[in-house]
Amino acid sequence: MTCEALALLHSEPVIRRVAVKLVTFGIPGAASLLGIASANGIIQVSAHIPDAPRDMIGLIGAWPAFQNRLQRLPETTEADFAFDHVSLLAPIPRPGKILGIGLNYADHLDESGMEKPADQLWFAKASTSANGPFAPIDLPPVSEQLDYEAELAFIVGKTCRNVSRYDAHEVIFGYCAANDVSVRDWQLRTSQFMLGKSFDTHAPFGPWIVTSDEVGDPHNLRIRCFVNSEMRQDSNTRHLIFNCFEQIEHLSTVMTLEPGDVILTGTPGGVGAGHKPPRWLRTGDRVRVEIERIGAIENIVRLDSATGALSR
Amino acid sequence: MTCEALALLHSEPVIRRVAVKLVTFGIPGAASLLGIASANGIIQVSAHIPDAPRDMIGLIGAWPAFQNRLQRLPETTEADFAFDHVSLLAPIPRPGKILGIGLNYADHLDESGMEKPADQLWFAKASTSANGPFAPIDLPPVSEQLDYEAELAFIVGKTCRNVSRYDAHEVIFGYCAANDVSVRDWQLRTSQFMLGKSFDTHAPFGPWIVTSDEVGDPHNLRIRCFVNSEMRQDSNTRHLIFNCFEQIEHLSTVMTLEPGDVILTGTPGGVGAGHKPPRWLRTGDRVRVEIERIGAIENIVRLDSATGALSR
Repeated sequence: MTCEALALLHSEPVIRRVAVKLVTFGIPGAASLLGIASANGIIQVSAHIPDAPRDMIGLIGAWPAFQNRLQRLPETTEADFAFDHVSLLAPIPRPGKILGIGLNYADHLDESGMEKPADQLWFAKASTSANGPFAPIDLPPVSEQLDYEAELAFIVGKTCRNVSRYDAHEVIFGYCAANDVSVRDWQLRTSQFMLGKSFDTHAPFGPWIVTSDEVGDPHNLRIRCFVNSEMRQDSNTRHLIFNCFEQIEHLSTVMTLEPGDVILTGTPGGVGAGHKPPRWLRTGDRVRVEIERIGAIENIVRLDSATGALSR
Repeated sequence: MTCEALALLHSEPVIRRVAVKLVTFGIPGAASLLGIASANGIIQVSAHIPDAPRDMIGLIGAWPAFQNRLQRLPETTEADFAFDHVSLLAPIPRPGKILGIGLNYADHLDESGMEKPADQLWFAKASTSANGPFAPIDLPPVSEQLDYEAELAFIVGKTCRNVSRYDAHEVIFGYCAANDVSVRDWQLRTSQFMLGKSFDTHAPFGPWIVTSDEVGDPHNLRIRCFVNSEMRQDSNTRHLIFNCFEQIEHLSTVMTLEPGDVILTGTPGGVGAGHKPPRWLRTGDRVRVEIERIGAIENIVRLDSATGALSR
């Protein structure tokens, strides 16, 4: 973790509680590992609970069997790694689904020149767009219209279908801060948003999964986005047009939701495209999404380094 | 496999060749298995090549290491299971991506009242919509506008990005017949098609993956759809507006494609919505998609059996 990330960690008062914040992390020379972020660093789950699943989707699916032992860890266990010796990765490196809802804050509707939708407007981001909470965001060579969207993400905890809004809290495992990075010209060149939402690296989220019981009411959280320390978005999840529970009801009418699915709940006003003239992200920009009781992610924009060769 | 499926198998002359058709199949009391469809039944891969990967995505990723041993199997090996003792499942039970292109045959453009798009129009189907080649298609209780779309699907064989159309043949592992089942009112109630394309069971494909070398030119294959023996679609993949290789170039400009990703290449004219009045699918309808040199899938429409309860 970089010094900046460490600074982020200490800028959120909630982080000083002893609590379960689940991370996927990397150390030099090892595959990705599961951990718990504690006050002094990362506790490696497999070092203390050898029979625990080794990946986050597995752990979420097996949560009832491991919850008690995991929640006890941060109170009784020394950290195995200092924060600056690890890299925090996407909490779920390859989600089964990443779905996003459009036009779901009144102020974002205004700046988009759109009317309030009668219906929830959903699109998909490719699972390969998942990105770490402090990893670079690629500026694709095929566009100059790179934009940010600060969003509360929730993580599905149970395999479920046809869940009513009144039961929906039961299937939310936890929450993350997310950036629904968007390439506006590709998003709008056809009627379908999917490609413009699916560039590699364009779904950074994290920095950890904060479990639902710890977040409490997900509809009363301040959400902000900063670009190079300038605040661009500042709202509260109480302004969601369709709240998280209504989103689950609607999505699960159509499809089975599964442990580890990542749902992006919409972005408030203030995106780059909403400015006149638009304020697109450029190489070197530092974009921070910060959500009350959850934490912050911060990603630097760099030129896309993908080569033209096949990866063999 | 049902008797009907067996009949399908023998209705395609190409099937009588000794050739590699990869299947994922189920037998009572076992997890899903990998197999090769031979003239007399299914050869279970793990029974003859114990070190082969146990799931299709793994096998596709490791193809160069196993190709020769696998291709030799159908010539030298007795079938382990008769066709009527197994169920053929979705060749890739849970693909990393299922992407579909819209309005990609001239005759389907006409019936949709749409102009030829200047650009490839892409949407996603949720990975949970993947379904077996002979499994039921659910008619959701929330719609009466259930429709079929016969499509050639190709399966990505290599992790790749920024692939030119001239190299694109190298990253296609093989082909399937697919039905891009669509719930038209849900597809069109917002600007985004995704939900209407993503109901559970609405991406049946198979019956096997026919490897690229065996199919040859993917742009000269007759493709037909039958509903209860009435032919509704009859075209040829030579009429694709954007061909498979152009599709790979465009998609891989945006995102990394990975082994096992399923790409649906568009449907010709004749869908239910294109009739006046529309001819929606109803409970009990039998929908068959048949593609030259590949084979046929056949799915019966039934009322959605999903309950309102959480799956715990």
